Amino acid sequence: MSAPRGTETVTVAEYLGRRLLQAGVEHLFGVPGDFNLTLLDGLARVEGLTWVRSPNELGAGYAADAYARRRGLAALVTTYGVGELSCFNAVAGSAAEDVPVLHVAGSPATTAVARGALLHHTLADGVFDRFSQAYAQVTVVQETLTAERAAEQVDAAVLAATVHRRPAYLSVPADLAELPVDARRLATPLAPPAAPEAAAAFAADLAALLADATSPVLVVGHLVDRFGLAGEVRAAAEAAGVPFVTQLSAKGCLDEDHPLSGGTYAGTMVDTRAAALVEAADVVVHLGAVLTDVLSGFFTHRPADARTVRLDATTAAVGDGAAHALGLPAAVGVLAAQLRAGAGRWAPAPVRPARPAPAPVEHGVGPLTQQALWAQVQEWLPAGTAVLADTGTSFWGAAGLRLPADTVFVGQPVWNSIGYALPAVLGQGLADPGRRPVLFIGDGAAQMTVQDLGSIAAAGVRPVVVLLDNRGYTIERALQSPTAGYNDVTPWDWPALAAALVGPALVAHAARTAAELAQALKAAAEDVDAVVLVVAELDPFDAPPLLRALAERNSAAQA
Amino acid sequence: MSAPRGTETVTVAEYLGRRLLQAGVEHLFGVPGDFNLTLLDGLARVEGLTWVRSPNELGAGYAADAYARRRGLAALVTTYGVGELSCFNAVAGSAAEDVPVLHVAGSPATTAVARGALLHHTLADGVFDRFSQAYAQVTVVQETLTAERAAEQVDAAVLAATVHRRPAYLSVPADLAELPVDARRLATPLAPPAAPEAAAAFAADLAALLADATSPVLVVGHLVDRFGLAGEVRAAAEAAGVPFVTQLSAKGCLDEDHPLSGGTYAGTMVDTRAAALVEAADVVVHLGAVLTDVLSGFFTHRPADARTVRLDATTAAVGDGAAHALGLPAAVGVLAAQLRAGAGRWAPAPVRPARPAPAPVEHGVGPLTQQALWAQVQEWLPAGTAVLADTGTSFWGAAGLRLPADTVFVGQPVWNSIGYALPAVLGQGLADPGRRPVLFIGDGAAQMTVQDLGSIAAAGVRPVVVLLDNRGYTIERALQSPTAGYNDVTPWDWPALAAALVGPALVAHAARTAAELAQALKAAAEDVDAVVLVVAELDPFDAPPLLRALAERNSAAQA
Repeated sequence: MSAPRGTETVTVAEYLGRRLLQAGVEHLFGVPGDFNLTLLDGLARVEGLTWVRSPNELGAGYAADAYARRRGLAALVTTYGVGELSCFNAVAGSAAEDVPVLHVAGSPATTAVARGALLHHTLADGVFDRFSQAYAQVTVVQETLTAERAAEQVDAAVLAATVHRRPAYLSVPADLAELPVDARRLATPLAPPAAPEAAAAFAADLAALLADATSPVLVVGHLVDRFGLAGEVRAAAEAAGVPFVTQLSAKGCLDEDHPLSGGTYAGTMVDTRAAALVEAADVVVHLGAVLTDVLSGFFTHRPADARTVRLDATTAAVGDGAAHALGLPAAVGVLAAQLRAGAGRWAPAPVRPARPAPAPVEHGVGPLTQQALWAQVQEWLPAGTAVLADTGTSFWGAAGLRLPADTVFVGQPVWNSIGYALPAVLGQGLADPGRRPVLFIGDGAAQMTVQDLGSIAAAGVRPVVVLLDNRGYTIERALQSPTAGYNDVTPWDWPALAAALVGPALVAHAARTAAELAQALKAAAEDVDAVVLVVAELDPFDAPPLLRALAERNSAAQA
Repeated sequence: MSAPRGTETVTVAEYLGRRLLQAGVEHLFGVPGDFNLTLLDGLARVEGLTWVRSPNELGAGYAADAYARRRGLAALVTTYGVGELSCFNAVAGSAAEDVPVLHVAGSPATTAVARGALLHHTLADGVFDRFSQAYAQVTVVQETLTAERAAEQVDAAVLAATVHRRPAYLSVPADLAELPVDARRLATPLAPPAAPEAAAAFAADLAALLADATSPVLVVGHLVDRFGLAGEVRAAAEAAGVPFVTQLSAKGCLDEDHPLSGGTYAGTMVDTRAAALVEAADVVVHLGAVLTDVLSGFFTHRPADARTVRLDATTAAVGDGAAHALGLPAAVGVLAAQLRAGAGRWAPAPVRPARPAPAPVEHGVGPLTQQALWAQVQEWLPAGTAVLADTGTSFWGAAGLRLPADTVFVGQPVWNSIGYALPAVLGQGLADPGRRPVLFIGDGAAQMTVQDLGSIAAAGVRPVVVLLDNRGYTIERALQSPTAGYNDVTPWDWPALAAALVGPALVAHAARTAAELAQALKAAAEDVDAVVLVVAELDPFDAPPLLRALAERNSAAQA
């Protein structure tokens, strides 16, 4: 037992709940099941934590992911086997996208495990670690609580998730949820140990590299957003006068109209100015940058070399030198100090072209096109929203927007799981309630996770949902076999469906023409107390320009 | 390369398709994604295979599971990462329930894997075997195709699934889907090798045991149904005059009114006559029986002893003797011969009580109760249907039915994943089109997988769906914390929702009273061309008697 007699104790459930609160978590996502009921009962007694209903675990997992992006941690509570495995894709996505979700799975009692009982929700073979073993492939740590070390194990899981910005897996046996543990540990907030020696060593390497540099550039990746470091990075760039480019996965993290912004860096695919800036730099600092096929313009980025500085979640390295064990916040601190110290020495940032005069926006009565849709959205999008863009035409349309200042952008360009962004509205909306979510999602994607419209409405979140209805998977039509039947989906009556899930809070519009879309968007902005659905009817073979570019690069890469 | 020059070749996709056809598979379940498009294009050219649209992979996986139960194999085709991990729970369920689903996941090209490319749908770490490693926890074999051995690997996966009646995992790299392989292998149907020595050794062990036996009993488990051996087992029991009892997981597999039927065996929980018969027997033959908590009445079954014969998918054993490597079909053959040889020596089967006079059925106008619902269903249920019962009050209500002859029963009493049975209607309906599906499902369960109502209708399946609407998870209310808020679900307008998904083929009824239910069921039986939804409104705390018994046993087991 963790708690010696006479000490102040709390139950494991309360201990976990209080650690979550300390980390900024106020909502619990998940689905109940018989192996987590005692845990849920215990968590329900922790003041400040609210249970959020989700119709299934995949949706809960996606919602938790979006919540964690804003809050720095989220908790996803499921039951053994049937529950925890239903959100495997969501948790793997959190791993791919560097999102700190603590997945808490209720599990069979230690007594049943000890006697190898053949329980339901197992493979009826007396083996109990199959699912934690499976989760070892996609989580940074797996802890199955024991009576001896429960509190330490909770701490290890929470700390690992926040330090790595990766999902962690915590299995809570049903008979340990009420185990008393020493409450005194809670007085010490969880934090990674300071690493002054690593910081000094990284600083020395960096100073040597910067000594003769004149034109450094920062490549801002999504880890900057995950660690909440955007303000610090912006301040450092401004103080030093160093330009930055932004990966698509970090869109919205820094103001796109900032004078030091060199644009979107995806190799040569999206923005040739950004590519030229990086190629010409004499030091390239990767700030939590991830260079996958999609994010690197199919590997047309400047490869890492001796003039590259790489800052990841837990390491910092210069060129081919040793990786120092330094968390991103500390490494950014070292970097900022040295850039500031060199202020005046750096070449002036290239002049950022003024925001182009808006293209003429189509408001006519012919069939709606992707081009007209995104031009109208560009014109309409209010500042201060959260834009959520699902994978497919939605992401590649939204990626081409020049976002207003103070816009949060949520997408999944590494993992690319369709259906993610709809439940993500729930997590984003609860994490950041001052900001109205604006969701762009295709019909094929929305069919994956549509039931969460009901949870979103029930939780009081009031998004604008722009449903790009092109009757199937247009991203796949763009990539291969455009007329294959497998790319078509079963047609649904979307307004009726949404009304059945949402109830009277729903306002639905059909937009078959640019004129109808303009009217619908205008009404949506005014109906702030409604869940607004705009069904935009689009041609199955129409796609935004960036998606066409992606498809061309993809087929060249396959050839 | 598998195919030497000059030999007849087919592509890997066609080879796989033809092996599936040979095994009785005519439908493919799944969702397209960029890593499986070449495979899907190749499968589309195989005459006799039809692609079935599913809105998401979890539904496709459940549908495949139900299809495999009837056909002896099903194919589930997904894409790498985002797709294959979305149905992890469904495939794990197939493992728990002994269902042969071949999970075919399209994966990155071997060339990209060889150079460790950082691709989308990965964790961006150049590691490509994470998901097959995760699947190693729940599938009987994992094959990632290679250019050298592709055809052999396809055969190994198909054979493993059918021999073990367990899911198998087959990863098809995108650049191998069109690889030519030797077609001549297709002339030899896949079959496990005969095992005459194991059969002889098992026969000898069995003969020794039966030599002094007078009262053997057969415990029929679900593997009898999975291997399609119900007819053979019934014939053997009849020829020998040996009684049988049936596990809940094998409900519907043998006629419940058969004179040799000793009833339902779940330890002492469901049917004390069946328990007494097993206790009194001098030989107990477990025919693919699985004795989990739920199926054994919380371990109140007669434990295995020296007088127990155990036949599993791939082994047969007598008492504590060695397990012989013998598949269930061959082992049942050995058993049948010896039981027949002893005909006349066995004690007469206890007289099966006549079907009890039907209890008075409530048709009044007071609020509908679980008792009235199940009594009406008992009276109404036509012969020749497929009854699908989701986990929860639906399963425990349906488990108490005495089924008409020629009724297929589909449930998940080992894995118990709520939401399973709705997409299962799609698989059952396509596998066995002469039989109308009758689905019983709670509202909490239906919220998990509701979108498949659209696929069911689009595929031409015309079920009766009885939705037990008790506004939450009543099985959990029965187990613990009945009034906890986490057991409530967001209310939906079910008839409107179903209409939006199904279209004009939907006919919906609300049944708030027994009288309304009677009318709705009558109309449902007549509307054979409609998808009929009956929303039965029930009290959140009302439960069928078997569920109450389960809850009592469960809490005793926890104490």
